[in-house]
Amino acid sequence: MNVYRYDENPLLTPADVKPHRPDYEVIGVFNAGVAEFNGEIILLLRVAERPRSNDPTIVKAPVFNPITGDLDVVSFHREDIKYDFSDPRTIRLAGQDSFIYLTSLSYFRIARSKDGHHFTVDNQPLLFPTTSLETFGIEDPRITKIDDTYFISFSEVSPVGVGTGFASTKDFIHVDHHGMMLAPENKDVVLFPEKINGKYYVLHRPVPKSTGAPEIWIAESDNLRYWGNHRYLMGLRSDHWDSGRLGAGAAPFRTEQGWLELYHAADENQRYCMGAVLLDLEDPSKVLARTNQPILAPEVDYETDGFFGNVVFSCGALQDGDTVKIYYGVADTSMACAELSLQEILASLTYLED
Amino acid sequence: MNVYRYDENPLLTPADVKPHRPDYEVIGVFNAGVAEFNGEIILLLRVAERPRSNDPTIVKAPVFNPITGDLDVVSFHREDIKYDFSDPRTIRLAGQDSFIYLTSLSYFRIARSKDGHHFTVDNQPLLFPTTSLETFGIEDPRITKIDDTYFISFSEVSPVGVGTGFASTKDFIHVDHHGMMLAPENKDVVLFPEKINGKYYVLHRPVPKSTGAPEIWIAESDNLRYWGNHRYLMGLRSDHWDSGRLGAGAAPFRTEQGWLELYHAADENQRYCMGAVLLDLEDPSKVLARTNQPILAPEVDYETDGFFGNVVFSCGALQDGDTVKIYYGVADTSMACAELSLQEILASLTYLED
Repeated sequence: MNVYRYDENPLLTPADVKPHRPDYEVIGVFNAGVAEFNGEIILLLRVAERPRSNDPTIVKAPVFNPITGDLDVVSFHREDIKYDFSDPRTIRLAGQDSFIYLTSLSYFRIARSKDGHHFTVDNQPLLFPTTSLETFGIEDPRITKIDDTYFISFSEVSPVGVGTGFASTKDFIHVDHHGMMLAPENKDVVLFPEKINGKYYVLHRPVPKSTGAPEIWIAESDNLRYWGNHRYLMGLRSDHWDSGRLGAGAAPFRTEQGWLELYHAADENQRYCMGAVLLDLEDPSKVLARTNQPILAPEVDYETDGFFGNVVFSCGALQDGDTVKIYYGVADTSMACAELSLQEILASLTYLED
Repeated sequence: MNVYRYDENPLLTPADVKPHRPDYEVIGVFNAGVAEFNGEIILLLRVAERPRSNDPTIVKAPVFNPITGDLDVVSFHREDIKYDFSDPRTIRLAGQDSFIYLTSLSYFRIARSKDGHHFTVDNQPLLFPTTSLETFGIEDPRITKIDDTYFISFSEVSPVGVGTGFASTKDFIHVDHHGMMLAPENKDVVLFPEKINGKYYVLHRPVPKSTGAPEIWIAESDNLRYWGNHRYLMGLRSDHWDSGRLGAGAAPFRTEQGWLELYHAADENQRYCMGAVLLDLEDPSKVLARTNQPILAPEVDYETDGFFGNVVFSCGALQDGDTVKIYYGVADTSMACAELSLQEILASLTYLED
């Protein structure tokens, strides 16, 4: 696979983004949704910020307070054995797999570009947590344009779980909120760009607890607000790069061969790569083909090193003829872009036996 | 709380139900949905069966095969240290919390009664697993009548997760399937018996993994097929009987004070009791009041002893004036019924401060 990483990579780093208030610092600008609007390329950046601290023995957790509208800060001593700080992203009770706090709070901010290489970041957030279901932040937006409306699906994180929020905008100024579309635990939700046989479809990624794994499902709707007829779509492969967890990435786009979905997956070592899956044009619940190898893997320094290294994670791509521009977060820290050939991606797919 | 347990309790036990095939045995007949139909009380029984075995060193797991339509059996040696058989309901990999097989397979069968005390069990299942999402069985049906249709929500269990199936019948003979209404992990789904301000509502119980707990949420729909606008409704109370997990039980019914929902909960010792919560008549996402103590707890021998003891678990109740007939599964083994006073239940509620 020929991968043309932009010379300007990383396109945006935390240093390029001013925190939304002076007592906070930006530690991540990554996993952006992508859209074309008014002749520009829009990145809807996930910006992760944390309270500034000069004391390395203290770990701080920012929490949006829906009553005051302000951010509260909960502090922990790093040596406190009741807690586990080994994952830099989370605070867990010792011995537990689930988290009780995040070490940063994410929200969405727009970056704009004429050429797709050089971006200017808006001064203000476009979307900031607003509800009790978003007290730990909003994350990983995906954008799908249908007619003249841009629909945004994103993770809503709070102590009661990680669900999927849904919002829409026509101008990237005013945003309408449509509530939580899929209940916890569910993230990595991407909307297809058109109705298929009269129905809207999303790919989604539940994380079940009692049995099952973080794998990709598909659901349908007739109004984009309510979703059902959930079906299992594709799963982990124990001997592959996608053996640990996987989820949809960019919004799927139409090719002659089928819907092409660029998805992310991690192995047991939490190395995140991007791969591709082809879905039937008339029935997107049918998997036609899948890449046995990643199409994009963390290789260069900005992908392997960072807040959470060895991660390439795309929430949006643009197709222009044979060129697929994959915008992607690197190391949970910065944004990058790589161009791949559509024909090469399609040629790398392995078709399933009937 | 005055609780009148029927003299005939347990009303139905595994000995009362003939297995659906001779090489299987019934180990549970419990957690039945309840409806009134044609002058009779219908219990839609969850029947749990397992392959007969004379060898106590072998643990067998029945699995529905959607291709052959038959049941496959996977066998394990009880001494195999790769596995954990300590929970009699499940087979887990050693050291894991999630399960990989169940030791029984459940399906639904009807029992009928004129007096609500004496039941006759149908010879054939009404609902049996049919899809790849039900290979480990279907469980815990709830029935809600709207107009002339009985809607059935139930757990669909398979290796890819535990989701919620949805079906309907007008005659308890022919059943229409409506697919998986809520994606894994989600169970304990009960439908309100009428539209409220133009929308259908369900209570549901996700089990998130990364953060959050097994708690009750509410969702809405305009067509009963697709669901959204998920909101968190009520949670665990660390110093109460409902400190471990909780979920909706019987379909809610209308009282002058609000929607009365009888819910189940367990503490950390897996002791399952029933309690009550009152929801606003005009906005069922608003909790008005809740019982601080259980209204029904496992006390008598058929509730404390059995396949999985110390469990009372209702999936359906009937209200007749001041009488609330709570049909409930006991010890994951048998069915029982208790009558309580509606006024006493309502008087036991503690209203929340505004």
